[in-house]
Amino acid sequence: MKVDGRPYRTIWPAEDGSVEVIDQTKLPHVFEVQGWRTTPDAAEGIRTMVVRGAPLIGVAGAYGLALALRDDATDAGLARAYDALLATRPTAVNLAWALNAVRAEVQPLPPSSRADAAWRLAARLADEDVECCRAIGTHGARLIADSYAKSGKSRPVNVLTHCNAGWLATVDWGTALAPVYAAHDDGIPVHVWVDETRPRNQGASLTAWELQHHGVPHTVIADNVGGHLMQHGQVDLCLVGSDRTTATGDVCNKIGTYLKALAAHDNGVPFYACVPSSTIDWTLSDGVQQIPIEQRDGREVSEISGMTAGGQVETVRLTPVGSPVANYAFDVTPARLMTGIVTERGIAKADRAELARLFPR
Amino acid sequence: MKVDGRPYRTIWPAEDGSVEVIDQTKLPHVFEVQGWRTTPDAAEGIRTMVVRGAPLIGVAGAYGLALALRDDATDAGLARAYDALLATRPTAVNLAWALNAVRAEVQPLPPSSRADAAWRLAARLADEDVECCRAIGTHGARLIADSYAKSGKSRPVNVLTHCNAGWLATVDWGTALAPVYAAHDDGIPVHVWVDETRPRNQGASLTAWELQHHGVPHTVIADNVGGHLMQHGQVDLCLVGSDRTTATGDVCNKIGTYLKALAAHDNGVPFYACVPSSTIDWTLSDGVQQIPIEQRDGREVSEISGMTAGGQVETVRLTPVGSPVANYAFDVTPARLMTGIVTERGIAKADRAELARLFPR
Repeated sequence: MKVDGRPYRTIWPAEDGSVEVIDQTKLPHVFEVQGWRTTPDAAEGIRTMVVRGAPLIGVAGAYGLALALRDDATDAGLARAYDALLATRPTAVNLAWALNAVRAEVQPLPPSSRADAAWRLAARLADEDVECCRAIGTHGARLIADSYAKSGKSRPVNVLTHCNAGWLATVDWGTALAPVYAAHDDGIPVHVWVDETRPRNQGASLTAWELQHHGVPHTVIADNVGGHLMQHGQVDLCLVGSDRTTATGDVCNKIGTYLKALAAHDNGVPFYACVPSSTIDWTLSDGVQQIPIEQRDGREVSEISGMTAGGQVETVRLTPVGSPVANYAFDVTPARLMTGIVTERGIAKADRAELARLFPR
Repeated sequence: MKVDGRPYRTIWPAEDGSVEVIDQTKLPHVFEVQGWRTTPDAAEGIRTMVVRGAPLIGVAGAYGLALALRDDATDAGLARAYDALLATRPTAVNLAWALNAVRAEVQPLPPSSRADAAWRLAARLADEDVECCRAIGTHGARLIADSYAKSGKSRPVNVLTHCNAGWLATVDWGTALAPVYAAHDDGIPVHVWVDETRPRNQGASLTAWELQHHGVPHTVIADNVGGHLMQHGQVDLCLVGSDRTTATGDVCNKIGTYLKALAAHDNGVPFYACVPSSTIDWTLSDGVQQIPIEQRDGREVSEISGMTAGGQVETVRLTPVGSPVANYAFDVTPARLMTGIVTERGIAKADRAELARLFPR
């Protein structure tokens, strides 16, 4: 997608041998590119959410391994880098998936060939992610087109989304927002309610920023608002991403997704997760019981950063000194609350048989 | 309740003839008392949420009328002050209730007696609010005691609350937190999950501050977290306030309350609103359709204030410049999602017959 008229991906190999990424911790206030020269650079970037979003984390992990193998292509070097990268984000299944793919590719090779093979594979994974997201967009845009037709083409389709599952969460296009971009580019009028998404505010900072740069009408709301909007017919469709999806269609996504799914269910609003099949963990059948939920630093809740009137990015404390804070990063929405799952191969009901039909093993 | 060892109410007549209030816009960072000398001072204080919370707004409105009548006790002066105060917060039924009470008291009197009568009535309304909240605490504490007994007294009772319905929202004691204070003072171990409550963060700033000052264990969480906690058995009981309650038990409270009620219902967690009967609007039967929802300044969503590392209170921008924002202040939780309503006369099921039984007309 474009930033100030110039097309970007979120991650790319630079000519000087480093890996460059858009620093998402600086958005929406400052657009800045960060370069990674070593595996610790990549691990730190993934851990501190310079890059975030399940698909992008996977590609970032692959490039992180490629960086390691240029310095030390032994089995020990590979294992050390693999472990360091895997430990950065325990919940995201894409990270393990991409790291395993690179390891499987290079392990049979002599050390002298490993680095080149890893760089080639990381680039291929990036390209595959772009194609996967484009396909999700094509399939999901039909839901928006159908909603538009259902209203007699009388008004824009109101989509509610949570967190950032846009192009910044992937290499390009996005997952939950890929249908929005596809519909918008097809001339279907669409307006997006953007959940702020506390505590890290990925909606207010990233989703709003990328929709604005693409020209998609949108409105930022507090996470508390969606239920009220749905009670009053102001949401036609909910589209969210997924960090991990069970074989049975339970969706582990940013904390608060479950609450929006409950409201959608209570008001008859269709609720879809847009899911690259790489986020489906076929070994899991009960997301609430089986998926461990990452707890992050409480300062993400007790403090927040923003731009002062003077143009400085400043961090301010929100809670009283001495009040404890808890910070759960994800929750699980049971399949019974999902209308369906949008994948790169089409739309399935959120159940084991339908998902397995699209992705026979 | 106490602040640094000294007992306070949230509003009181000062010896110099002004009305003093705790400035809640400065908490939790600075504890400051503000004095009102005129009705416009009071109206501005109510409008800008120096005082907030349905019961406190009512008493503040009564004192605001008393201030007016000291300067101009004519019928015209009374009408002008009444209108100015009523316009400050359109949703809160307590404001109209208290203003009507003062007007009815003073209108039959000669202008020379009106001011004294208004001051006496405002003081009585304040005292009655304290007694009402104390009674809500006594009734609601039984729910906490029962929950404690049910766990075999094996662990603290986990209460989740949204927004601030503590003593800062009333004259003293609070509504939703009155049972917590009563149980805590009775020696029942209780821990409160405090919803941050975006966009104005009344939970993170006010509820956390007052619980900390009273010594009640608590943890601040983002508004998105409650559903996850309920899925995992970490909430025993939800207690919230109400700005307006229908005769049928629908509860209009801070935006996001509805989402927590959905999660409680989905997980079998009891969900109660703690409601002074003055917030019950006996003319309403369908809260979602009949209660107008106040929309507030979008800057409450796009900007936030907090304390910098240097000890300054600073406002920072969270959203991209140019991204629109919507700010709905309340939502309505249908009676079907409420386990019950805690009132000063006892606990009722959320339906017309049970509420009417407690409050025969």
